[in-house]
Amino acid sequence: MNEFEAIDRMAALLPERPDDVLVSIGDDCAVFRIGEERWVAAADMLVSGRHFLPAADPEDVGYKAVAVNVSDAAAMGARPRFVLTSAAAPNSETALACFRGVAAACREFGVYPLGGDTTGSDALVVDVAILGVLDGEPVLRSGARAGDLIAVTGELGASEAGLLALTEGIGGFERLKERHRRPEPRLEAGLVAARSGAGAMIDLSDGLASDLRHICRASGVGATVHLERLPLADDTRKLASLLRREPEQLAATGGEDFELLVTGSEAALKRIERASGIPVTPIGEVTVGDDVAFLLNGERIEGLSGWDHFET
Amino acid sequence: MNEFEAIDRMAALLPERPDDVLVSIGDDCAVFRIGEERWVAAADMLVSGRHFLPAADPEDVGYKAVAVNVSDAAAMGARPRFVLTSAAAPNSETALACFRGVAAACREFGVYPLGGDTTGSDALVVDVAILGVLDGEPVLRSGARAGDLIAVTGELGASEAGLLALTEGIGGFERLKERHRRPEPRLEAGLVAARSGAGAMIDLSDGLASDLRHICRASGVGATVHLERLPLADDTRKLASLLRREPEQLAATGGEDFELLVTGSEAALKRIERASGIPVTPIGEVTVGDDVAFLLNGERIEGLSGWDHFET
Repeated sequence: MNEFEAIDRMAALLPERPDDVLVSIGDDCAVFRIGEERWVAAADMLVSGRHFLPAADPEDVGYKAVAVNVSDAAAMGARPRFVLTSAAAPNSETALACFRGVAAACREFGVYPLGGDTTGSDALVVDVAILGVLDGEPVLRSGARAGDLIAVTGELGASEAGLLALTEGIGGFERLKERHRRPEPRLEAGLVAARSGAGAMIDLSDGLASDLRHICRASGVGATVHLERLPLADDTRKLASLLRREPEQLAATGGEDFELLVTGSEAALKRIERASGIPVTPIGEVTVGDDVAFLLNGERIEGLSGWDHFET
Repeated sequence: MNEFEAIDRMAALLPERPDDVLVSIGDDCAVFRIGEERWVAAADMLVSGRHFLPAADPEDVGYKAVAVNVSDAAAMGARPRFVLTSAAAPNSETALACFRGVAAACREFGVYPLGGDTTGSDALVVDVAILGVLDGEPVLRSGARAGDLIAVTGELGASEAGLLALTEGIGGFERLKERHRRPEPRLEAGLVAARSGAGAMIDLSDGLASDLRHICRASGVGATVHLERLPLADDTRKLASLLRREPEQLAATGGEDFELLVTGSEAALKRIERASGIPVTPIGEVTVGDDVAFLLNGERIEGLSGWDHFET
């Protein structure tokens, strides 16, 4: 049983959905109604040795734990408001350092930490739950329609390249390492996308190859991606070349970009780019059917996949 | 630096409190306003080998992780509505079993699981964040006044006795073991207390000796507890006697009772007992000053304390 089968089996155990829950498990966030307002909620857990290197600075880990949740809220088109942060740490100094990063990220993203828990453990584990508020309609994974363009914000592969530089002990590449340590969720682009006619949206946490499949499955569509169109920075290409890795494949499978994948018309994508000031790069098209094809210069590349958290 | 010093230092790092946050870190839950409604939020993390035995059934662990959060909402006088549950587990089967317990607890307490995260780790770690809604005023830790009575719901020491029976490999005592594995949060009693004039309230998670001190510190008062008045069940006494432990001290320091400690007038305590159908036993008085005294048959007992999650 892999991670996604486990999640499907969990979904089958859910109690009956209350009327005030509008979107349940299966999107970047759940959506629920409180009075006249619509709120989103999600949680993400980071585990030492799985989501970050055991030697990582706990302050970076705390920062990242908040940033990845802000990214989930952004992917719904919501404004994040509150977090609850729990940390299990080998000692109270580590827990405090981690919270210092949490607090820094909260200031950065305009989020307030309502509370949480602190406890002992052998290795650092941080879980953050986030609450955000919607101005308009949420942008769901299920909104992709055949004929839409597929685009991504910013750049792909930088975080994976940074992680490889760290694990392979390669000097330099500080910008890439920082992208891995302190990702930059696309908060404003998400808000803009929601009011600019985005069809579907997801944040790229497990890697494009995985996350695009979530969009296709939820929307009942297929997709064609032209890998040579992926936006890669020069330092990402240089690092890939050093490690003799094909840069576009690295970018399509690498996790933790925390960019947004958006579907929509060419006009909608242009509006998002203009209003957010973040590059929005078309990389493919939504198709009829359920085939998800990755082409590199017209040639199909098989076997691309992102993370499975229970694979070892 | 112990757990509570670490929490104080974390509180100093908080960003400025937004206007819609009414109660911040330092109570059982935070309180915040959404439109006309007031909501509470909290999170509790359970770690293998710290909060439960490594051999514990993951389904029990999932159940308990929800129950202890329901207890936090109850201690504010709130009705729990939603949880977000994250689990790091050695394999997807363990994660699924854990979620089976989460789902069972959600049904039991009328809570809906909005989402969460599932990931890999060496040992099981579960974090639950809870959201609840208030009908009236929240009952805070800071509401104890000199002259009030101190009372507890239900019984004390049963969970600690059950844990000892499990760790010492003592047969029988199934009721106590079940109290440890699947605690029963005092949801109705908490709701009743909020509308029956309770002064202060906290749920007993770290043990009476610790948790009463939280109330005293937050309220700027002292307390006298008469240990011989603690409500102990016969099987708890019997287990304590088997292990040559003083039963009242076991009950005053043992964690995870998830009973409510309430302060108020005699009349208020009687109303809570009547309306909830749960025994509410006066065990002492709130006093002027800051001395927290535990007396056993009139003789002062020093050195009683509950859990510190970073003590080893």
